[in-house]
Amino acid sequence: MIERVRVAVVGVGNNTSALVQGIARHRRTGDPAGLRRPVIDGLGVGDVDIVAAFATSAEKVGRDLTEAIFLPPNNFPCLDGPIPSVGVPVTRGLVDASGVERVAAALAGAEVLLYSAPSGRPETARAYAEAALAARVAFVNTTSDPVARDTALLDRFTAAGLPLLGDDLASQFGTSVLHDALLRLLAERGLDLVSSYQVNLGGTEDFRNLVERPNTKHQSKLNALSAADKVQIAPLGYLSQLGSQKVAHLNIEAQGWAGTAVSLDVKLKVHDPSGAAGVNIDLVRLAASALRDGRGGHCAEATPLFKSPPGTPV
Amino acid sequence: MIERVRVAVVGVGNNTSALVQGIARHRRTGDPAGLRRPVIDGLGVGDVDIVAAFATSAEKVGRDLTEAIFLPPNNFPCLDGPIPSVGVPVTRGLVDASGVERVAAALAGAEVLLYSAPSGRPETARAYAEAALAARVAFVNTTSDPVARDTALLDRFTAAGLPLLGDDLASQFGTSVLHDALLRLLAERGLDLVSSYQVNLGGTEDFRNLVERPNTKHQSKLNALSAADKVQIAPLGYLSQLGSQKVAHLNIEAQGWAGTAVSLDVKLKVHDPSGAAGVNIDLVRLAASALRDGRGGHCAEATPLFKSPPGTPV
Amino acid sequence: MIERVRVAVVGVGNNTSALVQGIARHRRTGDPAGLRRPVIDGLGVGDVDIVAAFATSAEKVGRDLTEAIFLPPNNFPCLDGPIPSVGVPVTRGLVDASGVERVAAALAGAEVLLYSAPSGRPETARAYAEAALAARVAFVNTTSDPVARDTALLDRFTAAGLPLLGDDLASQFGTSVLHDALLRLLAERGLDLVSSYQVNLGGTEDFRNLVERPNTKHQSKLNALSAADKVQIAPLGYLSQLGSQKVAHLNIEAQGWAGTAVSLDVKLKVHDPSGAAGVNIDLVRLAASALRDGRGGHCAEATPLFKSPPGTPV
Amino acid sequence: MIERVRVAVVGVGNNTSALVQGIARHRRTGDPAGLRRPVIDGLGVGDVDIVAAFATSAEKVGRDLTEAIFLPPNNFPCLDGPIPSVGVPVTRGLVDASGVERVAAALAGAEVLLYSAPSGRPETARAYAEAALAARVAFVNTTSDPVARDTALLDRFTAAGLPLLGDDLASQFGTSVLHDALLRLLAERGLDLVSSYQVNLGGTEDFRNLVERPNTKHQSKLNALSAADKVQIAPLGYLSQLGSQKVAHLNIEAQGWAGTAVSLDVKLKVHDPSGAAGVNIDLVRLAASALRDGRGGHCAEATPLFKSPPGTPV
Repeated sequence: MIERVRVAVVGVGNNTSALVQGIARHRRTGDPAGLRRPVIDGLGVGDVDIVAAFATSAEKVGRDLTEAIFLPPNNFPCLDGPIPSVGVPVTRGLVDASGVERVAAALAGAEVLLYSAPSGRPETARAYAEAALAARVAFVNTTSDPVARDTALLDRFTAAGLPLLGDDLASQFGTSVLHDALLRLLAERGLDLVSSYQVNLGGTEDFRNLVERPNTKHQSKLNALSAADKVQIAPLGYLSQLGSQKVAHLNIEAQGWAGTAVSLDVKLKVHDPSGAAGVNIDLVRLAASALRDGRGGHCAEATPLFKSPPGTPV
Repeated sequence: MIERVRVAVVGVGNNTSALVQGIARHRRTGDPAGLRRPVIDGLGVGDVDIVAAFATSAEKVGRDLTEAIFLPPNNFPCLDGPIPSVGVPVTRGLVDASGVERVAAALAGAEVLLYSAPSGRPETARAYAEAALAARVAFVNTTSDPVARDTALLDRFTAAGLPLLGDDLASQFGTSVLHDALLRLLAERGLDLVSSYQVNLGGTEDFRNLVERPNTKHQSKLNALSAADKVQIAPLGYLSQLGSQKVAHLNIEAQGWAGTAVSLDVKLKVHDPSGAAGVNIDLVRLAASALRDGRGGHCAEATPLFKSPPGTPV
Repeated sequence: MIERVRVAVVGVGNNTSALVQGIARHRRTGDPAGLRRPVIDGLGVGDVDIVAAFATSAEKVGRDLTEAIFLPPNNFPCLDGPIPSVGVPVTRGLVDASGVERVAAALAGAEVLLYSAPSGRPETARAYAEAALAARVAFVNTTSDPVARDTALLDRFTAAGLPLLGDDLASQFGTSVLHDALLRLLAERGLDLVSSYQVNLGGTEDFRNLVERPNTKHQSKLNALSAADKVQIAPLGYLSQLGSQKVAHLNIEAQGWAGTAVSLDVKLKVHDPSGAAGVNIDLVRLAASALRDGRGGHCAEATPLFKSPPGTPV
Repeated sequence: MIERVRVAVVGVGNNTSALVQGIARHRRTGDPAGLRRPVIDGLGVGDVDIVAAFATSAEKVGRDLTEAIFLPPNNFPCLDGPIPSVGVPVTRGLVDASGVERVAAALAGAEVLLYSAPSGRPETARAYAEAALAARVAFVNTTSDPVARDTALLDRFTAAGLPLLGDDLASQFGTSVLHDALLRLLAERGLDLVSSYQVNLGGTEDFRNLVERPNTKHQSKLNALSAADKVQIAPLGYLSQLGSQKVAHLNIEAQGWAGTAVSLDVKLKVHDPSGAAGVNIDLVRLAASALRDGRGGHCAEATPLFKSPPGTPV
């Protein structure tokens, strides 16, 4: 019989809402739609239990996780109505390194700590990683803050036989994946790229935060593309009306035989938090499986699930 | 020094116009834009000479090839103004098997016969193949009529050391390629297809002919897609205003994590004849190279350039 | 106090499903969303009662109207779950003129007969009109069959003080309205139309029927446009995956100052039956109001709601 | 015989390039394409002569106007090759009020001063207006700086019998016009707006400047729309690859009968400078006609050509 995966999560935002609701939905319906890997080393989606959750928002701390995921600014939709409580109250999270021991204690019984807070607080990310080390729990970093790329830290996880997976989760399906696939397809067919642009619009709090510090993300998006010199990326647009949906408009102008024009216009609409949860469900199972096997440090199978795995520049 | 490739072409339609103009343009500019393979076995684009052309239209027969390509119903644009005459008058083509000897005689000096007439006349296609055999010339069949899939015929070409490449040219970049790439990408990322449609609009005479016998093409388009059961293809629409351009509208509705919606809308605009010419320029060089090496029959390198290569059902 | 409008309906297809469900929804929610005229001569949407329904399908006859609207081939969605029965069983309808008296008897107590069957059966339409005359009931013809344009019939309704409204309902919002508005806007701003196309895709049984006799509809769509000579309409595409939705793709290419290009691409997605029901709810109230006032014949206020009102060519 | 209109222009940017090239093209071809009003009070497009031009860029001052319009950062395309010189060298323009007399002297012989510099320098705009007053020349302000809305200034032009037309030119065809027309159409048909967004992308220097001070323009765009509360406007995106083209993506989500969804997606592509020049050609003729008739101050016919005519808030 399969031992269920016990996951603690940091951050009770839209991505956690999508994860929690999706697991509940999968248990209810068994529907494998939208799953990249229904089973990983014997572990199904329904075998994942969220056993602890950390957040800093005063409104969320103390509330049951299954209620807290619907509090603003979260706006991922309530998919199938209220979900059954799992008896996990949201615990007050870290803001600096001072509470590491408290968090480590709260991790007792967990196998994986999924770090799913907003990017941009590397000290906090590393403090949680320390707590995971202390509690002998695998760590998954979905943010762009360098954790798995911190060589000293990675070495300590490896030596301790604890998995450390990161950094910067690559969404299951998003603008970069699509844009790059189209540019590669054109190149494969011998077409020459003339110009291309990408506009991203979103309505989540995470998106609003990105709009305010666009440069990092902008560069990271360009890095993700194979023909970056001809591609321009418009500033992110925060539009509250989109809720948890993301809309992207892509244009590609190319040349075929005899210089004749080929043009492509694409509109993509996705739920951003689903794109994260659909990868997180794989990452926590990969981490648990590695932990159980005593495989510490990074895990090769996880590499394609991150934009900045160990070895890429910080 | 490279010996130039001497090609005879059957059909003086848009595809031949694109081929002739593109070669002239390449000689003038050297611009490699839009070429899948600039050089094949030492043969560049500018090394291809059209040395004979066959057509049945009374207006075209007897005219210089470089003029005939601009006569109606051809509507591929005149790209860079008039092109220098190569002194090749259009020869009266076959309508049945009665003129095979005359055509074989006219092929003297050619290495490759590129059969680029409209699909739907298998007897004519095979008559030209007989002429090629008689004249010891390689044969390339771009139509969906079964020629390379005619096992007896293929065996005779093989035995004679003459290349026979076909059937049904796969455009360099068109709706099927794009639609299939998108469907595959979604599947790779674990998304589940809900529904998808494809609408094709075009303004060439070839397109108008297809509209009148849509069933074959319709099925062939579905065969080209990996998830055919959820994909629907709208009837082809002939719109003269599009000229030699083809426009496709694609929609894909899928499900990601927790059944949330992912949707994609795409508009593609290409010049259909360029998509054919960009492949024909590779096929004639592959055929010439095989002929010179004494490699008869089909040529593995050509397989991906056809929708129905030998071995696929007739 | 308002006397409620008693309507009998011919045809229990998608349009009737949308009408019945929309009235029930409006009564429950009071939501005025999507209403062109919330109140007409004192009559609200919730004041309309369907008191009789005629159909020819063996599966529908005898079933309660509130169940029959969900039977195939109807595919308008069930909006808010099952709706309360109004105790109206579907009555066997006419197939020729032989049952006029039976229908007239069944109309007792109705004020308006809404003829909402498929177009293409003018004899049947006129037989129902005879039944309405006999029962002293107003008649609304939403089909393109000439009824209100039948001068003799219109004169008889006028003389009898009975309203006769028709022909060919103009959808509340559809491709023609949108395309024409855009073409007019360009003309107003001094832009010159170069070319324009329209593709319509749909998934209802009505749509499938239109695909099989496209010519009439095609011409009627062109008539609806102000710059018909430069506009081309692609063949209708029946795609079952669309259900009761209609999708249109429009393209407009124009010239502005100094001949520079202006281009517009539009995708429109609507529920076809909602476009009909949103107009039918106004037509039955206009007809009831005219009947109560003794205003027989056509009604000027209804003219803009039809594509072919009295006076336009048959 | 018509007396030609003698226009002096301030600003030698893309809009002036489009104006100068368009007039030359019209003289050559007589093509009325893209003209809102081919003739205004007897004055045709070819009757407009540019007799003076002012700029501040060191590269442009002293160059012939017909060369200066092609200098960077101008990127409006060269439409039909070089145009015949009209012997008008670019004159050094004002940066403050100190050169008013010099400019007034340079206006001798002109009838209209077209102020087509970038917005955002109200003092400079008013200095040119003073020069126009001194030289007894009509003034047209295409910028959003308040000139015609300066009541004292307008009174002085009126008293002097000199036309003063402004402020803030409304493009012949742009995003606001299109978006507003669509929103109005939906409202007319009784649909309820749920949400709508607009994204504007452009590649001119003017556009880049707007990106850097987005707030004003953003609000002005919202003011131009009839249903501003449900409409969100994404930040402007400067994409150099677009050159003088502007691309807008619009989305409209609405509700029809029974709350069913109606959705519209639009891509618009225009040359921004053409949208300005197509209005400027009307404004200078209206101004000349009013001047010749002795009608001073604002001109009612010009009101719809401005976003902020006299009487609207500064």
